[in-house]
Amino acid sequence: MAEFNINGKTVYYEVHGKSGPAIIILNGIMMSTASWKPFIRDFSRNNVVVLVDFFDQGKSQTLTEPYDHSVQVELLDELIERLWINEATVMGISYGGEIALQYALAHPNRVTKLILANTCARTSPWLKKIGDGWNEVAKTGNGYAYYLTTIPVIYSTEFFIRRAEWMEGREAYLTEYFSNKEVLERLIRLTDSSVGYDVTSRLGEITCPTLVISASEDGLVPSTEQQILADGIKNSVYVTINGSGHASMYESPLAFASLVLGFANLYDEGINI
Amino acid sequence: MAEFNINGKTVYYEVHGKSGPAIIILNGIMMSTASWKPFIRDFSRNNVVVLVDFFDQGKSQTLTEPYDHSVQVELLDELIERLWINEATVMGISYGGEIALQYALAHPNRVTKLILANTCARTSPWLKKIGDGWNEVAKTGNGYAYYLTTIPVIYSTEFFIRRAEWMEGREAYLTEYFSNKEVLERLIRLTDSSVGYDVTSRLGEITCPTLVISASEDGLVPSTEQQILADGIKNSVYVTINGSGHASMYESPLAFASLVLGFANLYDEGINI
Amino acid sequence: MAEFNINGKTVYYEVHGKSGPAIIILNGIMMSTASWKPFIRDFSRNNVVVLVDFFDQGKSQTLTEPYDHSVQVELLDELIERLWINEATVMGISYGGEIALQYALAHPNRVTKLILANTCARTSPWLKKIGDGWNEVAKTGNGYAYYLTTIPVIYSTEFFIRRAEWMEGREAYLTEYFSNKEVLERLIRLTDSSVGYDVTSRLGEITCPTLVISASEDGLVPSTEQQILADGIKNSVYVTINGSGHASMYESPLAFASLVLGFANLYDEGINI
Amino acid sequence: MAEFNINGKTVYYEVHGKSGPAIIILNGIMMSTASWKPFIRDFSRNNVVVLVDFFDQGKSQTLTEPYDHSVQVELLDELIERLWINEATVMGISYGGEIALQYALAHPNRVTKLILANTCARTSPWLKKIGDGWNEVAKTGNGYAYYLTTIPVIYSTEFFIRRAEWMEGREAYLTEYFSNKEVLERLIRLTDSSVGYDVTSRLGEITCPTLVISASEDGLVPSTEQQILADGIKNSVYVTINGSGHASMYESPLAFASLVLGFANLYDEGINI
Repeated sequence: MAEFNINGKTVYYEVHGKSGPAIIILNGIMMSTASWKPFIRDFSRNNVVVLVDFFDQGKSQTLTEPYDHSVQVELLDELIERLWINEATVMGISYGGEIALQYALAHPNRVTKLILANTCARTSPWLKKIGDGWNEVAKTGNGYAYYLTTIPVIYSTEFFIRRAEWMEGREAYLTEYFSNKEVLERLIRLTDSSVGYDVTSRLGEITCPTLVISASEDGLVPSTEQQILADGIKNSVYVTINGSGHASMYESPLAFASLVLGFANLYDEGINI
Repeated sequence: MAEFNINGKTVYYEVHGKSGPAIIILNGIMMSTASWKPFIRDFSRNNVVVLVDFFDQGKSQTLTEPYDHSVQVELLDELIERLWINEATVMGISYGGEIALQYALAHPNRVTKLILANTCARTSPWLKKIGDGWNEVAKTGNGYAYYLTTIPVIYSTEFFIRRAEWMEGREAYLTEYFSNKEVLERLIRLTDSSVGYDVTSRLGEITCPTLVISASEDGLVPSTEQQILADGIKNSVYVTINGSGHASMYESPLAFASLVLGFANLYDEGINI
Repeated sequence: MAEFNINGKTVYYEVHGKSGPAIIILNGIMMSTASWKPFIRDFSRNNVVVLVDFFDQGKSQTLTEPYDHSVQVELLDELIERLWINEATVMGISYGGEIALQYALAHPNRVTKLILANTCARTSPWLKKIGDGWNEVAKTGNGYAYYLTTIPVIYSTEFFIRRAEWMEGREAYLTEYFSNKEVLERLIRLTDSSVGYDVTSRLGEITCPTLVISASEDGLVPSTEQQILADGIKNSVYVTINGSGHASMYESPLAFASLVLGFANLYDEGINI
Repeated sequence: MAEFNINGKTVYYEVHGKSGPAIIILNGIMMSTASWKPFIRDFSRNNVVVLVDFFDQGKSQTLTEPYDHSVQVELLDELIERLWINEATVMGISYGGEIALQYALAHPNRVTKLILANTCARTSPWLKKIGDGWNEVAKTGNGYAYYLTTIPVIYSTEFFIRRAEWMEGREAYLTEYFSNKEVLERLIRLTDSSVGYDVTSRLGEITCPTLVISASEDGLVPSTEQQILADGIKNSVYVTINGSGHASMYESPLAFASLVLGFANLYDEGINI
């Protein structure tokens, strides 16, 4: 719906909803603005919702050189500047949560509330190897192998059974999508951009109300990593979506959307008991 | 703020907020409409919120004879009739969740969505004995013993440490309150009204979207009992508030309010992935 | 089976088994050497097992003045001295685990391995209030109220249903037992002896291999308290018995006995991977 | 140490220990008899312990055609026949647990007790895809990609950090090992042999005492799958090793060995409370 440029690089974003507190939604690594389509109606009911594609995602610019998270944090900063959003709830899932967290550390005054879904505070040595595996498989150019290596792991066993047909559709679509060399190169760069990420020692700097969301069957970001967020961020509350895997917004959309919308629409002052 | 009568018995209720989807809030056993004061501002921001005291609670009529849940379900039915609320999200915590669940079974057309916080589908033989213990202590007339037997168990160890001063205030206030013979008689009746409650075999009849909320440190309604709700109600999502005890609305108000408001304000059609 | 005296006070103990590594078993607060009867055959198969009643338990001396844990630690020290046990696995459940932990801190050379079942490192402000409640009810002299206040809470809902008849037997037996004023006075003193207990800051001093056992449905010593033990004791492993309440040795005897016997019979050097 | 033949195919096994109840140890998919070396001293202290390589594992025969679990169950049957073991505790981890479970279903009289560690009752559609991913990567012949795809996922984040040097050694060794085409072909066959495995509907037939062991950080066999075992096998107890991933015997050897040895050395009659 809209674009702007940073140093000549296109950033694609969408704004939905006419009024209400702003919510900025940040994608997981293999997602794009299009991934949120089923949520737009609910998200924009009482809120102005901003979706955005990170570099190497969806309709934003494809980069060609390796980079780290800082280019995505800069993208987000520029977006928020241009939209004249003075205050917003920033919600990120997985990769998006990592960018959200770093943005909040860099620009605390601009983040009213923070929502970190299926997010970790660091690319642990374990997660580093998982990412290396994805990239090693990507380099073979085998789209089906890449699908099998990256996608089933983000869903729960139960969801795989309950939504068998939907998963088959995903497999067909994504296997073809991942068979595109340029797509795999984007994903390799995105995955590598997380290497070295570690803000565990800085979590105490986050002062805004923060909602940490984990999923009981998340095999990629285990609850121990989210406990680190909950313990480190003083003004945080920590909730688990039961029976859901890493892709919690797809596995349990009602729970996910409730948490995001409910938290974003609380008054900023908090609730004093 | 308002009252009506059922068979000559007064029911006290409050309506807050001017517009938006209706949310009916049902108290836990030792709560009253006054317990929700810290939440009213947030709950009424985009919603019409109805609070109500069950019989033997707050400002509603004190009963004198033993009764079971059905009188409270009838009270709720009458309230909803009189308020001309055709559709509402009904949210109950603990005792209130049990009434909410039975109301939804009796009047499925009137419940758009159901929120069951720290609620069970039955008074298990274990919970029966816990209640018997409360009542046996109540009969001694010792308000401090009753406080110690009923209140600490509903909070988490962590909350007791974090909010030590607040807990001391509760102890002072409630010990005096529980030293009143009439108060103890009310609580004995309320506790006994749960004996024989068991809708486990009827959970499949609930078809509206349902949010089940548990708390990781709930020593009164363990997560195994809430799993029964989540497994039995087909259209349910199940979320756990981490680090919170049974009194989840007080221990983790931001998480609790987010879940209630977010779920109540989703479109009724659900989110199709 | 045997007795000795400390400062004129009788200590009752039993030794079972003829050979093998020694295991010293320390009772929970309302237990006695008699509580372990169903386990003796298995415990003494390959091990010398020592059971002992703390002061104010079973057949050991009834004290008359208030005391704290130190008198029980001293009792244990004297027992181990007299039995000429140079090295032993010390296993305690709940209250017994607290004494075991303090003994290991005081006499590290005498404890080869430590097993802490359903144990905490401190009497938290929350647990203090639970104990105060027990004692306040004890002071009424109402044995049935004391039973209802102290016993159901240590079992899981599932066990209450599965072993309904056994629980009825316990209720009949214990209600009568708790109706004895002297028994209640013992229990008051035992409960009060835990006030002020806190070794959280000293857990790093424990260097022997330690097994921490929790139970998923333990409403008295929540898993968060056992995580403190597991985090604080460097050479520890941490296991949860699923579906069991606080009285884990009765709810899940096969799991409990397996853990105790297995751990006690490992070579002291550990297993190097 | 010893071999026998089935239809001309070699089976390698080892017997350790001189006396005591027999324990038969069954390997996970990428393990072999050599994997248990650190455990032999403790396992054989009071027990006769039998280790065995399945077909396509360690020193047993390499097969060339596809097969399913039944050939491994037959191997186990033949082994037990030849060793004149009338009664044994059969313990399997992961793949080995699946074979153990099917052996117990086929020969209930020969299994005194069953231990199922990190085991599931079925190759779920989700697990099927994980296995397909392993095999798809194996077919590329890239040993490093195969290491990254199969090994990190079986360890916890915490273990990766705590035993970084050990993991580096594994990576170096296994990358080279997996770069051997024949090794990969074996692993493809072993992985494919689990396709179609599902004994969920037969769990009620298991009557021997059964210990189900899960690990809290197991990303391959989630606790929901082990709950199916615990719910389905009536005479079972269910324990979780906290802080450990799928390779629980390496991550938490003291807990793992305690459970196996303790359970195997209980009297068969059980413990009656």
